[in-house]
Amino acid sequence: MSASDTTVTTVTMEAAVLEHRDSRGVVTLTMNRPGSFNSLSEEMLAAMQAALDRVAQDDSARVVVIAANGKAFCPGHNLKEMVDHPSLDYYQKLFAQCSKMMLTIIKLPVPVIARVQGIATAAGCQLVAQCDLAVAVNEAKFAVSGVNYGLFCSTPSVPLLRNMAPKQAMEMLVTGDFISAQEAKERGLVNRVVAADQLDAEVAKLVESILAKPRVAIALGKEMFYRQREMGIEAAYQLAGQTMAVNMMDASAQEGFTAFTEKRKPNWST
Amino acid sequence: MSASDTTVTTVTMEAAVLEHRDSRGVVTLTMNRPGSFNSLSEEMLAAMQAALDRVAQDDSARVVVIAANGKAFCPGHNLKEMVDHPSLDYYQKLFAQCSKMMLTIIKLPVPVIARVQGIATAAGCQLVAQCDLAVAVNEAKFAVSGVNYGLFCSTPSVPLLRNMAPKQAMEMLVTGDFISAQEAKERGLVNRVVAADQLDAEVAKLVESILAKPRVAIALGKEMFYRQREMGIEAAYQLAGQTMAVNMMDASAQEGFTAFTEKRKPNWST
Amino acid sequence: MSASDTTVTTVTMEAAVLEHRDSRGVVTLTMNRPGSFNSLSEEMLAAMQAALDRVAQDDSARVVVIAANGKAFCPGHNLKEMVDHPSLDYYQKLFAQCSKMMLTIIKLPVPVIARVQGIATAAGCQLVAQCDLAVAVNEAKFAVSGVNYGLFCSTPSVPLLRNMAPKQAMEMLVTGDFISAQEAKERGLVNRVVAADQLDAEVAKLVESILAKPRVAIALGKEMFYRQREMGIEAAYQLAGQTMAVNMMDASAQEGFTAFTEKRKPNWST
Repeated sequence: MSASDTTVTTVTMEAAVLEHRDSRGVVTLTMNRPGSFNSLSEEMLAAMQAALDRVAQDDSARVVVIAANGKAFCPGHNLKEMVDHPSLDYYQKLFAQCSKMMLTIIKLPVPVIARVQGIATAAGCQLVAQCDLAVAVNEAKFAVSGVNYGLFCSTPSVPLLRNMAPKQAMEMLVTGDFISAQEAKERGLVNRVVAADQLDAEVAKLVESILAKPRVAIALGKEMFYRQREMGIEAAYQLAGQTMAVNMMDASAQEGFTAFTEKRKPNWST
Repeated sequence: MSASDTTVTTVTMEAAVLEHRDSRGVVTLTMNRPGSFNSLSEEMLAAMQAALDRVAQDDSARVVVIAANGKAFCPGHNLKEMVDHPSLDYYQKLFAQCSKMMLTIIKLPVPVIARVQGIATAAGCQLVAQCDLAVAVNEAKFAVSGVNYGLFCSTPSVPLLRNMAPKQAMEMLVTGDFISAQEAKERGLVNRVVAADQLDAEVAKLVESILAKPRVAIALGKEMFYRQREMGIEAAYQLAGQTMAVNMMDASAQEGFTAFTEKRKPNWST
Repeated sequence: MSASDTTVTTVTMEAAVLEHRDSRGVVTLTMNRPGSFNSLSEEMLAAMQAALDRVAQDDSARVVVIAANGKAFCPGHNLKEMVDHPSLDYYQKLFAQCSKMMLTIIKLPVPVIARVQGIATAAGCQLVAQCDLAVAVNEAKFAVSGVNYGLFCSTPSVPLLRNMAPKQAMEMLVTGDFISAQEAKERGLVNRVVAADQLDAEVAKLVESILAKPRVAIALGKEMFYRQREMGIEAAYQLAGQTMAVNMMDASAQEGFTAFTEKRKPNWST
């Protein structure tokens, strides 16, 4: 992700989300409202949804990194906006909009990596939980703290409960307390924890590893992964077997396996 | 939980379960058959069910602590009673009665905390697993040991498998071996492990944290939590979003959010 | 498992899978193609299926150990065979055959223990994940590395995702990277990790523990365990309660409980 890779920068510095796409299809979405700690305001949610929708249409996108400017990763929803709109209809639409954005992440055909440099709370913690992969600095902290203001973090509980043991999730939800980055790693909420000056390098390792594989294999696999999770094991095996057979027929897998038997590196265009 | 908090003590010292309810709605249910290590006899199951049913009807109850007198927390069912009633009908009713009590715990609108001071085996281990939260002393030990007597701990396996990885649960189920409190924490079966003289203080920290939140937020959230666990992720998000919108319309959340924007503490009656 | 235990050795040294069954019903299936690192070739899959099917019909089998000769446990499918048959039909049948073998493991009425002495990759890692229990040496390594050749390990993802947190599984699936035996234990993929010279002794401890329990209790429990995992918690309790009542009516449980109340060892023929 050196400067020379920059080929597309579609937004200005004032945008809520900065989009950076390099020539290899690495899309970095940087939440850019450090003054409000990158809260998921209506503006931020709309900008994230639009950016993710563009990735979904971008056949040469390979991986997404969700990052944030400033001291915090994301504190969740914008509390002032919520106070200013005390109506059931507003809240239903707000949580539906946020849930749609979260579900878009797992429906994308490319992996999404959270790059966490500060606190991630409430829907900000949810965002980390919903990403496919996450790397955090040692000082990062995670909480589902809505309950401190009288609002149980119900939507964050959806990916949280799918990332750690239920008692661990329940404790976070009823106390609102923070857990450390190390604790988050041990539970499975993040993949890797590093010193702050190693954060970009560690994210880059995952990015490079993904770029070294054929796009089609990752896309087929990611879709299958989240669908089979909701199935009984026999149906899961049936779906997985069909997916794998289709994957194997792709030219990239044929080349990969042939290269292996010929003891050479595969020659992949993507 | 000092003596001055005592406002209701509905049972005598001879009861199988001692109920203590303080003025803030902290209900402590203490299994009180130390001579039989607090086995889940018919009497104990009936007393626990009755006590939990009273909590369900008590609109100002805030949290339940399940504790035990004596050296053991709970060794599971009463083996002598089971030997004395060798009929399919008896066993079906017994396990149905116990399962009903366990399910009552997750249906209660308030969190239930296990306070574990000794061994918790078979249905005693199940009881810990089924609680929302658990705190144990360093010396506590956990096993699903029915298999040692020829009875696979099938009903305990239900919450056990929902608290730890399947191979970890399977090993406990086929060997009957104990795991330590520390191992239980690492797997997710208990939240916190402390020295014996810190047990009440550690339970009290969780209790105080729960009391500091509005009852309605916890009640809505707990019900949603266990229901969404059984759903596909899209349905889970739909339920969670609706729950959160309803929660947000409650006066306590409106006050909590307003207090936050005004940089003051929320003024909550409950 | 001393030499004197050998009562049945049904195959020759040239077989893909060596079957050893001792007089107590301990069946050891040793993958025996060290020259190809015990890849799951068509021959190996057929031999494993046949051996497992024989165990399913053997009413006095008590436990299965899946082991491997040579430096590797299993590298997954045979890549050369896959390259030589580039047709959708072939791949569909191959993955269906392998999935059937994996599902046979969890349908067996006896526990299946993986004895892992080297690398376990792709469908080899899947085999470890699908076993009920696993013991590995310190030097063992685990990966789902098909993606390195352009083939996402879809079928391995089925048990992998049921053995560890989703982000941990996803990282392995998109990077193809190895995890250590210690990491595998912390995540729940294996039960125990020991020095190489302790591997047989550690497997034997699990075997002896299983042999000390009645076969019927383990059989009823194992079937219930995997079925209740796919159910909502109320249905899971119903199935578990019925299973346990039936288990309790068996003579072995009656003897076990009576022995307990009489403070003596149970007198079990099986």
